This record gives sequence, C-alpha cells and structure tokens, in this order.
Amino acid sequence: MQIVIIGSGNVAYHLAKAFVLNNIPLAQIFGRNEKDLNEISEELNIPYSTEKLEDADLYIICVSDSSVENVSKLITKKDCLVVHTSGSLPKEILVGEYRKSSFYPLQTFSKSKELNYEKIPFFLETENEEDKKILFEIASKISKNVMESTHEKRKYIHLTAVFACNFVNHLFSRAKEISDSQEIPFDYFLPLIDETVQKIHEIEPKSAQTGPAVRNDARILQLHEQLLKDESLEIYKTMNYSIKKMYEL
Amino acid sequence: MQIVIIGSGNVAYHLAKAFVLNNIPLAQIFGRNEKDLNEISEELNIPYSTEKLEDADLYIICVSDSSVENVSKLITKKDCLVVHTSGSLPKEILVGEYRKSSFYPLQTFSKSKELNYEKIPFFLETENEEDKKILFEIASKISKNVMESTHEKRKYIHLTAVFACNFVNHLFSRAKEISDSQEIPFDYFLPLIDETVQKIHEIEPKSAQTGPAVRNDARILQLHEQLLKDESLEIYKTMNYSIKKMYEL
Repeated sequence: MQIVIIGSGNVAYHLAKAFVLNNIPLAQIFGRNEKDLNEISEELNIPYSTEKLEDADLYIICVSDSSVENVSKLITKKDCLVVHTSGSLPKEILVGEYRKSSFYPLQTFSKSKELNYEKIPFFLETENEEDKKILFEIASKISKNVMESTHEKRKYIHLTAVFACNFVNHLFSRAKEISDSQEIPFDYFLPLIDETVQKIHEIEPKSAQTGPAVRNDARILQLHEQLLKDESLEIYKTMNYSIKKMYEL
Repeated sequence: MQIVIIGSGNVAYHLAKAFVLNNIPLAQIFGRNEKDLNEISEELNIPYSTEKLEDADLYIICVSDSSVENVSKLITKKDCLVVHTSGSLPKEILVGEYRKSSFYPLQTFSKSKELNYEKIPFFLETENEEDKKILFEIASKISKNVMESTHEKRKYIHLTAVFACNFVNHLFSRAKEISDSQEIPFDYFLPLIDETVQKIHEIEPKSAQTGPAVRNDARILQLHEQLLKDESLEIYKTMNYSIKKMYEL
C-alpha cells in the first residue's frame, strides 16, 4: 500500500515519524515548505516533493484546518482513500472523487518534543467498512487506542481538548509572565503543576478544586485583582466567576 | 521542641503526615472539627483536642486565610514561635506577643491524594535569624527545596500558583463537563493532558502553544462558540482573546 503524507508541520512530522517507527513505509511527504520537508525527509529517510504528488492508495492530509479543503483539491486521482487529521472538520470537506475519511489523532504536537505515540487516541470516520478496516489496521500499528467517531462527536472531542490542553498551556504562559515579572523561577511551580495533573488521574477534577475562589475568600480575590492587569486580570475574573458558579457560591 | 499544628483541613493533614513520616514529633493537632481531627489523630497517632491548646514552642496555623487572624488569637503564650501557611498573608496578620513567621508550602493539597513531600517548595519569612534557623531545619527535613521569601514576593508566588494550578484544574472540570455531555470518557484526554504538562518541562509554555486561537482559525473559533454557552463560553472567549493578544494576532 502506497501512503503519502501531505503537510510539513507538527502533525505531519509526528505522524510520519510514528509511521516510520512502526515500519509502515511512506512513499512521499508532500508540501510547500521545502526547508521543513527537507528536514523531515533527512531525519526519517522519506522522499519529499513540493511539486509532484506521488501516486498513492492513501493520502493523509496534515495541514491547518483552513487549508484542508484547498489542499484536498490537489488530489485528482479517483481510486484512492483521502483522509484529513482535523478534529473539527467533516470528512465531506475533502473535494474530489476519491473515498473520504477522517483520521484524528488526539494529541498536542510540537516538533521539538518526543512523543509516546502508542498512547495517542485515534478517532476514525469512514464511508464504508473496507476503509474502516484499512485505517483501523494502520492506526492500530501506532496506537493502542483506536476508535470510531462521528463528525458531531469529534467536534466535542476537539472542543474538550482545547479546554484541557490549549487553554491550560496558555494559563502556564500567563502564570510564567507573572512569576517572570518578579524574577521567581517558573521551575518552582513544576511540582505543583505535576501534582495538579496527577490528581485528576485519581479524583474528579470537580472534587480536586482548591484555591481562593472555591473557598470564596473575598479578601484574597480582591488582593489578587489589584496585582493584575489587562488579559491576565480578565482571565482571573472570568475563571473565578466560573468557579463560583460551578460550586454555587 | 514541642510542635502543635492548628487546623484539620487538607494542609493540616498533609503537613502533619509529612512531619510524622520524617520523624518530627507533633505534640498535638488542634482544631474545631472533631471528626476530621479524630481521623488524622488515628491515622498518624497524634493527640488531638478541640478545647485545650497544648503548650508548645512552635504553633503551625493551617486554616483558611480568612480564619488565620482569629485563630492566631487563641495562642496566649509569649515565648514561642507562631507561623501561618498562607501564600497571601503577611506574618503580621498574626495577633499575639509571640514571634511571628510565615511557612508557606507551595503545593495543592487534597486529603485523598498521596503526595511526594520532598518536592514541595517551602517559602519562609521570619523576624530574626534564630527563627529562620529553626524553620529551615524543620522544612529541610521534609523538602529539598526550602527558600526565604518576602511577603511581597510570596503574594506573586501564590498568584502564579492560582493560574498554574487552581485555574488549570477548573479548566479540567469544564472540559469534563463538555465531554460528559456527549458521553465521551474523560480518560481519553489524559494522555493529551499529560503531554501538555510534560511539554513545559522542556519548552517554554509560550513556544508550546497550539490550537485554533494561536492559528487564528476564525472558522473553528466560530464553530466552537456555537457549541458552548454560559461560563464555558465566557472562558472560551476570554482565553482566545488573551492568546491572540499574547501572539499579536
């Protein structure tokens, strides 16, 4: 089976790497950014092109959501399977006469960070049983956690991930901004952060809530507001309001 | 040295346990909640009382910030050291003729969750060198990470912790609310959450940011807003606005 990955960003890189590590050969990695493609190609020993898309049985589109539709039009072949890796797009966003599927890995990908691929949940949606079998077989070589999911459900999976990952990371950025402003090393906070996450492996997050808002400690909340400004102040107010609402304070 | 812990909540329990595990004897655990005190007393084999405060050289007040002042008035002894464990209060909040210090463990404490105490940073502020020596010696038996900190700095440490821990946990609660609403097991998200935190041990959080806001993907942002309501919608808007501001999008 000939497989081509389209894209040269974080998802393309990590998927390509997961394929290579699990002995699933890739016929090509195709994209626009020659520098990135060249780097991936050299590290993983995969042919690349910015011009001529290789003939394949399976194309895996790993580009930003806003580019998926346009990129899908580059595939003019009919007898093949084309998948995108977006959490939020329907498989019907793909434009062409080929078979269409969604192949969504639930993980946060940064190029510079090693990943344990076998723990990544994959959510699949296909047009028919045969394509389902093909994609299950491939995904199962990478991960122990492969499931079907409708587009409707996948939208909520992605949304949950935005809260649990993207927003959490942004809180770390804002937290670091505060500690940096006082020359307090952010490393001091890593045991606390690790514990915050360890906790929810064992307890419901709702039961694990601590801090001034859930204690309804008006004095501290007011003090903190005086120390903050701009976006961090807005986050502070919004989060505390939401905490108070959740616990009916 | 006679040491008494005042309080029966999460901090009191975990500090008492850390003391006992490190062979620092406790003369008493004192508080109002007899049920909680009795449980701690039985588990850790420490005498407790709800009525008569034992005579001691060191009193460690582990109650909520809003109660510290009133509780400190219970100590009428003069020749002793009294400390509070709050991140946000000055040592001068303590009312009495004794020596006053702050003894702040930077961690999130839940009774039902085991903790590795030696990784907890302790921030100390004392009136004099002798008390500093006493508290450093005690804290160093528990943790490898003991530092001095002024009240001014401690306020910012606490505020950073609110963002990096309390708010992060609340995001997990709101994320779980979304996944629960679609009967998607929250366990699916744990590898993603673990990776989000693993990342910032290696990369600056600002460089690790992913998701629709930092990609400025208006289509997905709009779709997500349609799926949300109330507090979660407010969080969604506030966080995305803050992300866009940070990356000048």
